[in-house]
Amino acid sequence: VPDGHEVLVTTDFCLEGVHFRREWHSAEVVGQRCLARGLSDVAAMGGEPVAAFLSLALPARLPHGWVDGFLRGFRELGDEFDVPLAGGDIAESPDGVLADIVVIGVVPKGKAIQRSGARAGDRIYVTGELGGSAAALEVLRFGQKVRPGGYPRHFHPVPRIAVGKWLREHGIASAMIDTSDGLSTDLAHICEESGLGAELNEDLIPRAATGKGGGEVDLRLALHGGEDYELVFTARKNRRIPDKIAGVRITEIGAMVPGSGVHQGYGGRRRRLKAEGWEHFKRRS
Amino acid sequence: VPDGHEVLVTTDFCLEGVHFRREWHSAEVVGQRCLARGLSDVAAMGGEPVAAFLSLALPARLPHGWVDGFLRGFRELGDEFDVPLAGGDIAESPDGVLADIVVIGVVPKGKAIQRSGARAGDRIYVTGELGGSAAALEVLRFGQKVRPGGYPRHFHPVPRIAVGKWLREHGIASAMIDTSDGLSTDLAHICEESGLGAELNEDLIPRAATGKGGGEVDLRLALHGGEDYELVFTARKNRRIPDKIAGVRITEIGAMVPGSGVHQGYGGRRRRLKAEGWEHFKRRS
Repeated sequence: VPDGHEVLVTTDFCLEGVHFRREWHSAEVVGQRCLARGLSDVAAMGGEPVAAFLSLALPARLPHGWVDGFLRGFRELGDEFDVPLAGGDIAESPDGVLADIVVIGVVPKGKAIQRSGARAGDRIYVTGELGGSAAALEVLRFGQKVRPGGYPRHFHPVPRIAVGKWLREHGIASAMIDTSDGLSTDLAHICEESGLGAELNEDLIPRAATGKGGGEVDLRLALHGGEDYELVFTARKNRRIPDKIAGVRITEIGAMVPGSGVHQGYGGRRRRLKAEGWEHFKRRS
Repeated sequence: VPDGHEVLVTTDFCLEGVHFRREWHSAEVVGQRCLARGLSDVAAMGGEPVAAFLSLALPARLPHGWVDGFLRGFRELGDEFDVPLAGGDIAESPDGVLADIVVIGVVPKGKAIQRSGARAGDRIYVTGELGGSAAALEVLRFGQKVRPGGYPRHFHPVPRIAVGKWLREHGIASAMIDTSDGLSTDLAHICEESGLGAELNEDLIPRAATGKGGGEVDLRLALHGGEDYELVFTARKNRRIPDKIAGVRITEIGAMVPGSGVHQGYGGRRRRLKAEGWEHFKRRS
């Protein structure tokens, strides 16, 4: 740990049947998504990841080669961000592949971006596009084949480390979180911890273009779909925010307001948006 | 992280049906055993634990109150060592309670005790007594009731943090590991990583006194039984080792020798001891 820095620790489960299915996701994809989940948590604090640790429990009858593929996908993404797999634990699983990913990161002391720093009047921004990952799940649930290239945020999520770091270095983000559970759920965490409400302009929410045709996903998926691993952050009203940071599109989608909860629309058209992220999709499966 | 220190990270699964059974272990006991597992890894490096993180996946139909009991047991042990539960992740489990425990520790830079530092001629020592935890499992497998007080290392394992720290501060241990998987398995790791063999004097191995009668466990359980969370360490032949460290009995049980593998007996009576720790017990269940 460099002098003047503090340590960030993130832990996230990746469970077969909950976060992935072996018939839908190749071993490489599962490995990559698993590490991306942990790295994205570090990105959301403006930190820099330094090492990953993996607890892996495997069923006795797992096909030979699956773990090799998993570790290959895991390591490929790790290499991209200079994050070595530094240790972990192996156990036998009673049922299904169970992975828990721990990422250790560092951030200058006192500079980690919290969920609690938003003020009323702050504008809300999001990186990239939303709903692409959930769109892939919808197609898979219909039993249709999915071309991974058409859903990059689902099959090859790349965490927004550089964006998070840039925002922290420039002192721009007052609060931040990543969209692992979906915008409606994750933004609600910023609301709770900052003691505020949020108003979203649904027309502004950037929707992912997916599949062969590249059509935009439904608003519902962009509002509630999880596992896009984009960043949602707030910034003071008068801050100028670039259109792109580290090559990633940045879109203003609403504002923090006194009160509580996430709302769709402004003024008279305003209505409460229930948190229907990840949980919602799980129950329908 | 204090200046001049480095960070230790340990991760360990505690899985229902593998590491515990809800019909055998109360929620409090599971929580305590779970944290003890992580703390013991830090003890084995001579480190001091500073915080714990917990990933917990719960089945939908888990009885109300179970998690409260789990966290109560977890926190009670944490309080004893000043280790707060600093964060984690909650998910739904497809089947059974799944916990992954991450413990962060610190140790003065370059002073962590490794498994690789033993030299030929070093003596082998163990803390406390062995086999008590496995003895409880044997009774439980026969379907008999077990009085937790008769098997403290199984139901209330207390990690050997103070012993590990003392050994590190006094520069005594050349290599160290904890007996989470059983002496034959864990000592084999020191052998592999130090490029040596080990000879054990079976008459010297301290066997746990268990149950109502307080009879000593079979040698087989002391050699192979896991989850005692004692420390096995090596020290140069000429080092004087106290009979007790931090109130815990220390016993010399053998020596490191050129070659490879763990052996029982010396000279002509010597025979290879197969690693039959944790895995062995699991398959018989």
